[in-house]
Amino acid sequence: MLENMFREAKKASYVLMNVNTDVKDSALSAIAEKLEANRVKIKNENLKDLDYARETGLSDALIDRLTLDDKRIDGMIQAVKDIRSQVDPVGKVVDGYKRPNGLYITKVKVPLGVVGIIFESRPNVTIDAAALCLKSGNVAILRGGKEAVHSNTYLGRLMKEAVAEAGLPKACVNIIEDTDRGLVMEMLKAKGSIDIMIPRGGKALIEFCTEHSLIPLVKHDDGICHVYIDKFADIEMAVSIAVNAKCQRVGVCNTMETLLVHEAVAETVLKRLEKAYGEHNVELRGCEHTAELISCKKAAEEDWSTEYLDYILSVKVVSSIDEAIEHINKYGSMHSESIVTENYTNSEMFLNMVDAAAVYVNASTRWTDGGEFGMGAEIGISTQKLHCRGPMGADDLTTTKYRIYGQGQIK
Amino acid sequence: MLENMFREAKKASYVLMNVNTDVKDSALSAIAEKLEANRVKIKNENLKDLDYARETGLSDALIDRLTLDDKRIDGMIQAVKDIRSQVDPVGKVVDGYKRPNGLYITKVKVPLGVVGIIFESRPNVTIDAAALCLKSGNVAILRGGKEAVHSNTYLGRLMKEAVAEAGLPKACVNIIEDTDRGLVMEMLKAKGSIDIMIPRGGKALIEFCTEHSLIPLVKHDDGICHVYIDKFADIEMAVSIAVNAKCQRVGVCNTMETLLVHEAVAETVLKRLEKAYGEHNVELRGCEHTAELISCKKAAEEDWSTEYLDYILSVKVVSSIDEAIEHINKYGSMHSESIVTENYTNSEMFLNMVDAAAVYVNASTRWTDGGEFGMGAEIGISTQKLHCRGPMGADDLTTTKYRIYGQGQIK
Repeated sequence: MLENMFREAKKASYVLMNVNTDVKDSALSAIAEKLEANRVKIKNENLKDLDYARETGLSDALIDRLTLDDKRIDGMIQAVKDIRSQVDPVGKVVDGYKRPNGLYITKVKVPLGVVGIIFESRPNVTIDAAALCLKSGNVAILRGGKEAVHSNTYLGRLMKEAVAEAGLPKACVNIIEDTDRGLVMEMLKAKGSIDIMIPRGGKALIEFCTEHSLIPLVKHDDGICHVYIDKFADIEMAVSIAVNAKCQRVGVCNTMETLLVHEAVAETVLKRLEKAYGEHNVELRGCEHTAELISCKKAAEEDWSTEYLDYILSVKVVSSIDEAIEHINKYGSMHSESIVTENYTNSEMFLNMVDAAAVYVNASTRWTDGGEFGMGAEIGISTQKLHCRGPMGADDLTTTKYRIYGQGQIK
Repeated sequence: MLENMFREAKKASYVLMNVNTDVKDSALSAIAEKLEANRVKIKNENLKDLDYARETGLSDALIDRLTLDDKRIDGMIQAVKDIRSQVDPVGKVVDGYKRPNGLYITKVKVPLGVVGIIFESRPNVTIDAAALCLKSGNVAILRGGKEAVHSNTYLGRLMKEAVAEAGLPKACVNIIEDTDRGLVMEMLKAKGSIDIMIPRGGKALIEFCTEHSLIPLVKHDDGICHVYIDKFADIEMAVSIAVNAKCQRVGVCNTMETLLVHEAVAETVLKRLEKAYGEHNVELRGCEHTAELISCKKAAEEDWSTEYLDYILSVKVVSSIDEAIEHINKYGSMHSESIVTENYTNSEMFLNMVDAAAVYVNASTRWTDGGEFGMGAEIGISTQKLHCRGPMGADDLTTTKYRIYGQGQIK
């Protein structure tokens, strides 16, 4: 069903791959202008989605994510402008040298080609993803959540008009308007047309894609993040970070799901945190040792590997930093991990030995984010080791090409 | 069946990830010494493979690839020494900056963890792959061709002794000694134990891995490489490159499989090449236009997408550089592509618009090789766009980690 879209996308990718930055930037400017000029229509289309969401009894939290008001539209416009103002990654020479035989080899960044993105119901992701793809010279094929289909379809139409105004093929931005699940499968099998797939979403989606995809994936997987409060922690700082990492926003991937505390400071720290978490109505699920110190539910084995995305926290008392690191490497999802300590050796040990995308000393795990890292926006946070790891910006939407200049060299 | 190996490999990876370069280098030195000291035993084990290969009627070409004589053992020792002398990629800071909130962010190269490699029958690959993994701090799980099982098993034993002498766990190097095909499937499903899989081999193996793997792949796929002789080519150079790219070695992935010639020079060039290829007994399969100029078989549609790995060449006359680029982007395998031209605009156009790992002006495609590119050795040539593209050395066996230093920052 999507064959035609895929073929046109691939064709457009050869055009987009070779245009200069100013063409891509003028398309981005046109997108920002169109969002500004069509606020009312955007909100009207969004209302259709919201009406349907209320009819089908979507939760308040999901309806909130789905809603496009003027403030959210401001945010979308700003994101496009931020992405436009970034340095174009395409063409950057990352390596270069002359070989003994005179071959002059350069290694340069080039677009990936066609990027397929499967994402959840937030319609602002549609704009972020398409804008990041455009900036990096990639054609985007976007498949958003079915709850946002009216909003996404209209935003897609605006973007198609914008790229056409900049002289680019409309097929540079593609929205899959049909919400049939089978179309996800069609994307995953479109080897030769789609160069990479970025699935963002829950465990079930990621596993489905991993099992069925014939196309290389960059996974935006779950976040089972830890804060470890070391024996040598500044207690005030530890409490402040532990509260922030859990309570500032519970439904996102960089939120702490398990707190680890060294036994030497466990009593002091946990008694203070019991009170603080109580004020936020956080349900605590502790190990045996924790249960001796504060009142909490008993943690089961599966708690250590659960992403709650809720006001729930598992807590474990450990007898050493080694035990903390071992626990994290066993149960964590290699997303964001933090140690609170004033001890230099322990801080370095944690930074070196924890196997994760982002490892912190004395800071909240909540900072892991493309915007906070200075990338303007992110297309996802990679929890895999291949291609890129952590927040993924325009720079990570490139591959490399060896350009080799000879004078007739034969082997 | 391999569960235990996978578990021990993962455990060992946390050790290997954190040792300094001198430990890894001393393990590499020990490997080189053991190869030197055990030449006779290596050749004896290899003889068992060769006897079996002759019994089962393996082709002379395959028997040649399988054979370990003193010259080949010299080559293996030299490769280990070359890899040892390379700069350790681990720990390289690739980016770093301070955010407005005072967070100090660095992005550093770290090992991937456990690398699974499936490869063909050449036993020297066993040494190259394990040495590259060691240098880059990765545990290797190697599954070679069944024809080389005695050689590989013995080489694995030597490498295990060598890493142990350097104080590393023996599980840093693992050889799958059983040649049961089902074990390949077990590797592909070992999510959580193996971090990346590198399949090297024929189309069938790559497709099998793509379909079944739950682990990210770096594919060492086929090579359908082209040389395009432009209207503005230096004819002498064009003939020399076209002969070299086809005839210097036919069974490898960077060999030319299709020759494209601009119609303006087709008659001159093809008449000279007809003679040169005749001397090498190259069978020519031409398009209609080609068949009018020289004597050749008629090319069928599937010829344009066939990797012959043999003394066969398909030939097409094109009416413009655009047609050549379009043909390459349609039928090529994004491996190595070359233009022969003296025209500046055409050379840049080809370099920019051809979508391949390595794009050449005025040189043979045969140069695409880790050794020739100065990497010491290669673990494969990636024909995909994710993670790395082209020859893959120790540097490409790393991922990155954000190390973030805070002073109590909360969001």
